[in-house]
Amino acid sequence: MSHHTARIDLNSDLGEGFGRWTLGDDEALLSIVTSANVACGFHAGDPAIMRRTCETAAARGVVIGAQVGYRDLAGFGRRFIDVRPGELADDIIYQIGALDAFARVAGTRVRYVKPHGALYNAIVHHEAQAAAVVAAVRSYDSGLPVLGLPGSAWLRQADAAGLKTIAECFADRAYTPEGTLVPRNVTGAVLHDPRQVAERSVRMARGQPIEAVDGTPLTITADSICVHGDSPGAVAMAFEVSEALKANGIAPAPFVEGNG
Amino acid sequence: MSHHTARIDLNSDLGEGFGRWTLGDDEALLSIVTSANVACGFHAGDPAIMRRTCETAAARGVVIGAQVGYRDLAGFGRRFIDVRPGELADDIIYQIGALDAFARVAGTRVRYVKPHGALYNAIVHHEAQAAAVVAAVRSYDSGLPVLGLPGSAWLRQADAAGLKTIAECFADRAYTPEGTLVPRNVTGAVLHDPRQVAERSVRMARGQPIEAVDGTPLTITADSICVHGDSPGAVAMAFEVSEALKANGIAPAPFVEGNG
Amino acid sequence: MSHHTARIDLNSDLGEGFGRWTLGDDEALLSIVTSANVACGFHAGDPAIMRRTCETAAARGVVIGAQVGYRDLAGFGRRFIDVRPGELADDIIYQIGALDAFARVAGTRVRYVKPHGALYNAIVHHEAQAAAVVAAVRSYDSGLPVLGLPGSAWLRQADAAGLKTIAECFADRAYTPEGTLVPRNVTGAVLHDPRQVAERSVRMARGQPIEAVDGTPLTITADSICVHGDSPGAVAMAFEVSEALKANGIAPAPFVEGNG
Amino acid sequence: MSHHTARIDLNSDLGEGFGRWTLGDDEALLSIVTSANVACGFHAGDPAIMRRTCETAAARGVVIGAQVGYRDLAGFGRRFIDVRPGELADDIIYQIGALDAFARVAGTRVRYVKPHGALYNAIVHHEAQAAAVVAAVRSYDSGLPVLGLPGSAWLRQADAAGLKTIAECFADRAYTPEGTLVPRNVTGAVLHDPRQVAERSVRMARGQPIEAVDGTPLTITADSICVHGDSPGAVAMAFEVSEALKANGIAPAPFVEGNG
Repeated sequence: MSHHTARIDLNSDLGEGFGRWTLGDDEALLSIVTSANVACGFHAGDPAIMRRTCETAAARGVVIGAQVGYRDLAGFGRRFIDVRPGELADDIIYQIGALDAFARVAGTRVRYVKPHGALYNAIVHHEAQAAAVVAAVRSYDSGLPVLGLPGSAWLRQADAAGLKTIAECFADRAYTPEGTLVPRNVTGAVLHDPRQVAERSVRMARGQPIEAVDGTPLTITADSICVHGDSPGAVAMAFEVSEALKANGIAPAPFVEGNG
Repeated sequence: MSHHTARIDLNSDLGEGFGRWTLGDDEALLSIVTSANVACGFHAGDPAIMRRTCETAAARGVVIGAQVGYRDLAGFGRRFIDVRPGELADDIIYQIGALDAFARVAGTRVRYVKPHGALYNAIVHHEAQAAAVVAAVRSYDSGLPVLGLPGSAWLRQADAAGLKTIAECFADRAYTPEGTLVPRNVTGAVLHDPRQVAERSVRMARGQPIEAVDGTPLTITADSICVHGDSPGAVAMAFEVSEALKANGIAPAPFVEGNG
Repeated sequence: MSHHTARIDLNSDLGEGFGRWTLGDDEALLSIVTSANVACGFHAGDPAIMRRTCETAAARGVVIGAQVGYRDLAGFGRRFIDVRPGELADDIIYQIGALDAFARVAGTRVRYVKPHGALYNAIVHHEAQAAAVVAAVRSYDSGLPVLGLPGSAWLRQADAAGLKTIAECFADRAYTPEGTLVPRNVTGAVLHDPRQVAERSVRMARGQPIEAVDGTPLTITADSICVHGDSPGAVAMAFEVSEALKANGIAPAPFVEGNG
Repeated sequence: MSHHTARIDLNSDLGEGFGRWTLGDDEALLSIVTSANVACGFHAGDPAIMRRTCETAAARGVVIGAQVGYRDLAGFGRRFIDVRPGELADDIIYQIGALDAFARVAGTRVRYVKPHGALYNAIVHHEAQAAAVVAAVRSYDSGLPVLGLPGSAWLRQADAAGLKTIAECFADRAYTPEGTLVPRNVTGAVLHDPRQVAERSVRMARGQPIEAVDGTPLTITADSICVHGDSPGAVAMAFEVSEALKANGIAPAPFVEGNG
């Protein structure tokens, strides 16, 4: 696993605008991250944005993953929808296929799948929806790795189904001593000091313990660090993380090989 | 070309429901036609319908084509939209990719592209939109044939761009002596007698002249006959056409080879 | 309440098509029912359908109610969405206002509000969403009655907020001895014999006990009977119910006065 | 008309975000303009944004108008759609009604109608679509004024139909000697110097001639000046215009009376 070597992946959400509306600084992020979770049009993204994002990612050697979500543009995919598993699987296949078209046009392919927003949160525990997303990925391409939260139903089921699983960590989030994320509504859940976040990133990439929210040492095992880009501060922090990794001899590098 | 041989393709629009709403008798049509123009979700169709339609088509050896259209569910793709060519091309790539995902899951592939509704009509003459759809198909897969109206900018540009073009004819529509369709709002534009339509189909498949609307003999050169399925009468007529072809030694057969 | 008098309301869902797609026989139903729950475009219905439905309803003296639902055309409003209460309230206000425009153009007004599908089911128990819909109705017009399931959080909260509440019953559904509906997935949950359904309607309208699913006598107190129209059999059954009521001296009549 | 008096209206597009996506600085603009063209959800805007925009506008005494457009979120209403006039009228009624609901909840009403984007441009010349929008406004409320381009089919037909018409001018756009706007793709079509734009605004408000693009003196007759707010520079320019008007004794004031 990459956390034992001198390299780690940096992933971020990209291509999350829609039509006239933009979100985040994709240009800047595509110079920092090594894996791009590209929205596929169901909760964000549209065909023109998908094409441009895939083109730029491919040109810079950033690996393209499908950021799949609920069909909910009005809610940005952030609202749980009690969609039946069969329909959810079909929605996921549709999104992966649509993005894969643009990846192919850009000379590459969709290389992994990462659920977004409320779907990401739901399939930490919702076994039936987790199974649906796993089934969708398998039926589309059983060689596609999946990215998500360690300990989630999503990664557990994907692993049981023979999919390669990639665990991610969050350098700017506080962790409980048990290794779960401190909920966002708790004070201190989100770290804002770029230096602290960069330092945690280096420790996480090296497999060294960080401090949990109560001070307990906690070792996070992850193959990818998730960084954000939806504000100028977020982009600056992502840049700090990347620079700190490099300065400490850790190469930001995709978790999947090849981009051709 | 197939019109000189004892075979011809029968194509029809399929998978044109959305969510709770159904349209046409896909089950019946998939026992009659040899090529299925499957809607891709922008003007009709949704992921669950696309999966089911691809599954059934694949199981019956019916070839799958992408029925691409304007992004306009409310208008069923029947309203011209002055979308910029670049955006149109991206919309088309998205739709083909999404459908291709379901075709792959069903063990086959998207084998051709046929525009729908207002887009079909627009690119008879609208050179910039025709060029956009041609560019989209080429960038996705330059080996994909395209289906459309003989003499259209669409087929002319596709041919010039090196795409294989398939001309279709309409057995239930009156033709002018020049070989264009009599507009629908003209009396007699649509033929309703199944026997007459079936007889014309046989003549068209054989490359024999039919009568134009003024009685002039007219030879239609086409590789595929378009049949409809959005009413019980339409399905019955499609069945008559298929039976008449067979009774006259003409095998309904896809214009593309292979379905594996 | 009307169940002690010789009149009762018949309500049904109407205007549930979208664009090219139709659903149910609105023409037939508008000759049977006295209150029309008209879809408002978020889960079904579109502006053209809303106008036509309001015009026909107004012409026949059928009272117009807003059939409000989650923003989910793809799911026909049948999937629970964990939308925040504030946003849900705004979605409801929007829908009522849009329908009210067509009611006004037709010379009448929206006279009541009835939630649809998954929202209907959710606010039987989901207090926060029920409160949101109540708040929406109150803020738009505190004189608007609301229609729903007896015992639901929806009607309880509406009553507490000073809204007039109208309880509905289902003549074609089996009831538990406690007066709740037998879930649809249980055998015998839905009654299919028009004569039996019509007979139960008469008893319900008179306040006479019906038989619960276990044979226990059960008195349903309701001001409106919900009938369906999404199949030829459903329309025939609705007609039987209406005829049986009249034959027994019970006039189908709106629960709200006036339509001008 | 206001251009002969010491007051003029300032109108601007507001509420043009959607879901997660924001656009423009509505807070700042609502401190500058006197009339707010609020998007109604078909090309931009959503219920939550509409409610908030109406609340803030009402609180600040800014008059609310319905910014109606084609049903095209993906295209931001900037693409001509060849929608049939009857359907277009229904789409417009729907939008006005939906916005009016939020205006009412905020204690006021929709006070005028201004088409947006491609619809605005289309009905300068497209008589059938212009007639449809006029018919929609009349059927909803024949007392609603309409705002638009002087000389357009839209204002001409509205006037002929008995609607009050409000002509607007653009302080930051070059005019031809004939009084039409220089197309945006022509160099010099858009003025960027805030001082120049403010000075032109004062002249326009006073009915004094400005210089057309070729230097010819040109008198613009308008009741409202349209200002923009979709960039920090645009908001700064709108502020300059407002300040210059006040400094020259011209009060920015709504063209309609009352807001209660």
